[in-house]
Amino acid sequence: MNAEIIAVGSEMLTAGRLDTNSLFITEHLNALGIEVTAKHVIGDDTVRLVTAIERALADSTILFLSGGLGPTEDDLTRDAVARAIGCTMSIDPGTLSAIEERFLRMSRKMPEINRRQAMILDGAEILSNDRGTAPGQWRVVNGQSRRFIVLLPGPPSELKSMFTRECLPRLEKIAPKASIHTAVLRVTGISESQLDQTIAPLYVGVPHLETTVLAHEGDLQVRFRAQCQTPQEAVALSEEMADRASELLGANVYSRDGRTLEMVVGGRLVAASATVTVAESATGGGLAQRITSVPGSSAWFAGGYITYARSTKTRLLGVPADLLAQHGAVSKEAAAAMAEGARRGVNADWAVSITGNAGPSTDGEEAPVGTMFIGIAGPDKTEVTHRLWPVNDRGRVRAFASQAALDLLNRRLIAHCGA
Amino acid sequence: MNAEIIAVGSEMLTAGRLDTNSLFITEHLNALGIEVTAKHVIGDDTVRLVTAIERALADSTILFLSGGLGPTEDDLTRDAVARAIGCTMSIDPGTLSAIEERFLRMSRKMPEINRRQAMILDGAEILSNDRGTAPGQWRVVNGQSRRFIVLLPGPPSELKSMFTRECLPRLEKIAPKASIHTAVLRVTGISESQLDQTIAPLYVGVPHLETTVLAHEGDLQVRFRAQCQTPQEAVALSEEMADRASELLGANVYSRDGRTLEMVVGGRLVAASATVTVAESATGGGLAQRITSVPGSSAWFAGGYITYARSTKTRLLGVPADLLAQHGAVSKEAAAAMAEGARRGVNADWAVSITGNAGPSTDGEEAPVGTMFIGIAGPDKTEVTHRLWPVNDRGRVRAFASQAALDLLNRRLIAHCGA
Repeated sequence: MNAEIIAVGSEMLTAGRLDTNSLFITEHLNALGIEVTAKHVIGDDTVRLVTAIERALADSTILFLSGGLGPTEDDLTRDAVARAIGCTMSIDPGTLSAIEERFLRMSRKMPEINRRQAMILDGAEILSNDRGTAPGQWRVVNGQSRRFIVLLPGPPSELKSMFTRECLPRLEKIAPKASIHTAVLRVTGISESQLDQTIAPLYVGVPHLETTVLAHEGDLQVRFRAQCQTPQEAVALSEEMADRASELLGANVYSRDGRTLEMVVGGRLVAASATVTVAESATGGGLAQRITSVPGSSAWFAGGYITYARSTKTRLLGVPADLLAQHGAVSKEAAAAMAEGARRGVNADWAVSITGNAGPSTDGEEAPVGTMFIGIAGPDKTEVTHRLWPVNDRGRVRAFASQAALDLLNRRLIAHCGA
Repeated sequence: MNAEIIAVGSEMLTAGRLDTNSLFITEHLNALGIEVTAKHVIGDDTVRLVTAIERALADSTILFLSGGLGPTEDDLTRDAVARAIGCTMSIDPGTLSAIEERFLRMSRKMPEINRRQAMILDGAEILSNDRGTAPGQWRVVNGQSRRFIVLLPGPPSELKSMFTRECLPRLEKIAPKASIHTAVLRVTGISESQLDQTIAPLYVGVPHLETTVLAHEGDLQVRFRAQCQTPQEAVALSEEMADRASELLGANVYSRDGRTLEMVVGGRLVAASATVTVAESATGGGLAQRITSVPGSSAWFAGGYITYARSTKTRLLGVPADLLAQHGAVSKEAAAAMAEGARRGVNADWAVSITGNAGPSTDGEEAPVGTMFIGIAGPDKTEVTHRLWPVNDRGRVRAFASQAALDLLNRRLIAHCGA
């Protein structure tokens, strides 16, 4: 059983508007085991809308339409559905008086055009609207196979209330009794294609399983979604896939419970009663911002330094000026001295330094754009890792560097304190 | 001349993802007088995708596809387009060696599966990707009427760069010659509804004009888009609206040339040969990250402090421990002492401090969640502003605070150095 969603309205096709209603609908459908296989936005054009409805009904069991139920000329959804399924419409007296009453409560007379909102597809069930004037409609279409077409208002508050009250109980009756479970691996330290090459042999062709890989600035997610007849089977299939993938991916997997990398690092620091500080040059505060995005991070992060200029590296972190002169500010030596200086400066157990060149120009340093040195100073030793991202995009290079720094810190904490 | 956009990928049909690429594409198409008449999201399903492509080509002059150009099994866009238009594909040797080189620069061997990314539709022009491995493709289809099919990568940074460099010049050649001009005001310091209430009387009912207000974490944009018969008329109408709106909005308008607030602040500092530093508590590096997101920011930002714990405020910034004990770390007094300490510490002309409570809990401080004190220390004086965002969302409170801090610094710089 699958569904499609059509958002209706030319305003939804402008550069400033996104259809967010579909996210709400999708979340609830997925929870019932109903997959959304396509989404569309169609402007106020009857011909296009009729065609889109016909096509969706050919492909999908349930079609949701949002919007286009208003009182004006360009509210076409009712008419388009009637034409697409070959069905007549009539004014529903109960709906009409409800709309008239609504206006009366606001001490106004119902404008004549609002009568359109009481037009109901013959054979449809009326879905009440407790936040606005336009009722929704639920119409079963009995063709070669049984289809459901659902008309919902566009304003999110009206749609959500109507969907929850009127659609969910109806959907529960028709939804397949399937059980869905999704196991999520969060991964970093390898590329999307390396990841996929590693795990594809596991998942390709496995029935009842859908595997998705998402990548964002060096942070990867693998989602194993199993749809089976019982909850036990769905859990067993998806978790077994996650177990086997974890084995192949080894230390690149940093969480299996959905936690972000900064949460995982925070958790390890708390468990070890340890603290961390930062000395950021190229990332300019981005690493600290991620560390402190976790509620309660004051338990493991007391503060840190943003040392952008050479003089500030010397002044705040005590990096010797002649070290910078000899090796450059973008160097292994500078990264080590920055991490050690920060660790001393705030008396932390761990310190992470980032110095590099995010571009677009090299700012007088010799290292090419995309070069990063990441230092980790700990109770035992200081280590520096060199990375190069050949990406001519300042924002992305900085994001990759913060991600790599958190990853390196996480691995050091595992090595030092245990997993 | 009209266009459709298809975003490809099952992950784009999940409850947490929206296709934002289409907004970027729509904005540029509209500016060229090309209307977007439908948008679709289709999962990783070849049959559905082929059908969607055939249908879109029947209805529209230009079809954009985003995503599905990756190296893995579930990247189906190339294959689906080839099947829909009945066209063969071949490995392009130049593209293949460019991908291999890209891996070499990262000191890695290209995985075998990445060869797929060099498959080009016969007859297509290659659109170069300067941010990733997958090239785009531009294919003319000569059927009953001339159609254009454009394959673009899914990651927004790759898509935007490719669209701007490779698609815009091609689109300009085929676009209808309508004249569109958009005047943009960037605004901060007032709410979206205050803004709209102020300027709505100007724009409502004005023919040939489309006005859009966008709001994101305290940062607002007003776009006046005029579509006229001549460029002169379009410029005159949109710029006149922007002039009149600017008068009503006064000092809340911070730029009229599209520059971000951090760029505007950077420009003022450069003009005054002045520098700025930060002392961040609640925002944890977010303000510094915005300041240093501007290329060349080393000219005005030497470095700064993240002082999360009370002890760090004392140790790094010299804020007296008894001041913190008496007034609390979230206080006017603490904000002033932090800004002054940072200004001294790195010998900057200006310093911005942020101390507050981003939530979810109050961490032992008395001030309620959402409270922020923002200090600005300058050559003349130190001023502290108190703000309260009653938003129970740590990320949003932090973003609002960074935005307000930049806004306050910008206003101080105007007052001190002139506009």
